[in-house]
Amino acid sequence: MLILVDAMGGDNAPREIVHGCMDAINEHDDFDILLAGDKNKITSILKEKDFSNKRLDVYHTTEAITNEDSPVKAIKRKKDSSIVVGLEMLKDKKADVFLSAGNTGALMAGSKIILGMIEGVERPALMSFLPTSKGLSVIVDAGANTMCKPVNLLQFGVMGSLYISEVFGVKNPRVGIVNVGAEENKGNDLVKSAYTMLKQANINFIGNIEGRQVLDGDADVIVCDGFVGNVLIKTLEGAAGYLFGSIKNIFNKNLLTKISAALVKKELKKFKKHMDYTEYGGVPLLGVNGKVIKAHGSSNAKAIKNAVIRAKSYVKSDVLEQIREDFKNMEVEEIE
Amino acid sequence: MLILVDAMGGDNAPREIVHGCMDAINEHDDFDILLAGDKNKITSILKEKDFSNKRLDVYHTTEAITNEDSPVKAIKRKKDSSIVVGLEMLKDKKADVFLSAGNTGALMAGSKIILGMIEGVERPALMSFLPTSKGLSVIVDAGANTMCKPVNLLQFGVMGSLYISEVFGVKNPRVGIVNVGAEENKGNDLVKSAYTMLKQANINFIGNIEGRQVLDGDADVIVCDGFVGNVLIKTLEGAAGYLFGSIKNIFNKNLLTKISAALVKKELKKFKKHMDYTEYGGVPLLGVNGKVIKAHGSSNAKAIKNAVIRAKSYVKSDVLEQIREDFKNMEVEEIE
Repeated sequence: MLILVDAMGGDNAPREIVHGCMDAINEHDDFDILLAGDKNKITSILKEKDFSNKRLDVYHTTEAITNEDSPVKAIKRKKDSSIVVGLEMLKDKKADVFLSAGNTGALMAGSKIILGMIEGVERPALMSFLPTSKGLSVIVDAGANTMCKPVNLLQFGVMGSLYISEVFGVKNPRVGIVNVGAEENKGNDLVKSAYTMLKQANINFIGNIEGRQVLDGDADVIVCDGFVGNVLIKTLEGAAGYLFGSIKNIFNKNLLTKISAALVKKELKKFKKHMDYTEYGGVPLLGVNGKVIKAHGSSNAKAIKNAVIRAKSYVKSDVLEQIREDFKNMEVEEIE
Repeated sequence: MLILVDAMGGDNAPREIVHGCMDAINEHDDFDILLAGDKNKITSILKEKDFSNKRLDVYHTTEAITNEDSPVKAIKRKKDSSIVVGLEMLKDKKADVFLSAGNTGALMAGSKIILGMIEGVERPALMSFLPTSKGLSVIVDAGANTMCKPVNLLQFGVMGSLYISEVFGVKNPRVGIVNVGAEENKGNDLVKSAYTMLKQANINFIGNIEGRQVLDGDADVIVCDGFVGNVLIKTLEGAAGYLFGSIKNIFNKNLLTKISAALVKKELKKFKKHMDYTEYGGVPLLGVNGKVIKAHGSSNAKAIKNAVIRAKSYVKSDVLEQIREDFKNMEVEEIE
């Protein structure tokens, strides 16, 4: 299995990306890594650590797409960028999966243009993991599509359900839709129509999920448009950061509180780890013709290592074939 | 000053409502309270506590609007309900403010029908308080309007700004709009158009606020449509509940962790109080021709007491006059 990694994408590239890949190789078997990016820079980072392992190789590219680049323009113009080269190699089956922490818009646009969409899928969806009180749920869409039609939400639900069943082995995943109340007739027009379509789909649809329920773990797949998904995830990130920060301040107050901190340190650390996005690595871009994993833009080495592991399970799964199969025969009546 | 309180609204009515009002009378001066509701029930609750104070009186009503009632129908049919009677009395200037923890939709619909809108305001907005790392911000709209036009978001921003400046004395309040990124061109069509209008308005508009920034306290007024606002607030409520619950579990683990808990108890309690919505009482319904305060449906006596205090500051302020003044001369070019 060859995992192709964009060495030039993300706030901490290439250093943290390269470090994460070295750690993944050191700690796990069953795959090789090909790093796409500036060979000089990558090689010097590898040399610093005296790293040499034939399971890790470098593919030289001369350009990088930054977060300031306009996605579609960048894909069309920067032909020798790590993202474009990576997606081309994935398309040509020279790699099994492509992993990038770079410009989300460019990765989405590039995947649509270079890999194409799976037949029947209208829009690629970005998933996100959500640590809950019962384990891990996923949110689709997490920010790729800020304007959606009901059919998009239906498809997000179906794809999310297939992913979590194939990759996590969850049987008959429970799919819920983000809404402002518990009753079926709640919400705006988009959500009302999507509710009707999800109810008729061949999935385990459990109805509305209110904001205060998202962390309860009652739904395995949480469906929403990308605007709401982005706000929801970032709000949770902000809330976790604020609460942990406040608790840290409380513990640092004086000698007694510092003693207190020492007594619960281990448990608190475990909990913090559960809430830490870097533990969950990358998320798949669903609906495109190829396995693409997006890591958080601010990923550090640990996040990249975990994203590589995530990419490995994705390659081993049949998600893409399942989506192709399901959507080939799907006929949906469009509700605007 | 007469504060009129709906004794029959909310999950814990009438008991907790009556208790909250007794506490408010006992602890604060400068106002009288008139409780609208079932006189028998209210009187027996007052008697249990041997409460007698001429500052608190009861106005008998025979009906109650429940959360199961359809808002507009209930307002039209239940003419002797505490909400309809309360709003009629407010309209007739027999009270200075009306406070209810009842059916939000019915309170909104009733306010629109009975009190009417302030000239120039298109939709009533429900505000919500948000405890941040720097103090208290407000979100408008918090769930009253799940489908909005850009002009609604503009008006939410203007009304929120006037409220926080008049009631909290914040000078030149910073107004931000919830969005999926920092740059001006981010977001869906609604938010992009609203951004342009807010930028041109006579307020201190500071641009986009991402989900992870809402608790930073960088904006005094956070503008969004009611769907996003509802999801955002409930997500924060859920996150706070989950995190505090998890930390409680950690502290309850064994003797050492229990000792640890005892050492930080005071500080933790202070922090929890800051994050507790019941501390902030009720929120105003902005844009209608009268001062209406909505308390959380699950309000306990403390929340009602604090809502009464909030109602008192609202009465003392010039918010309504300021909104009337501002909107009389406001000409907005509609962007759909």
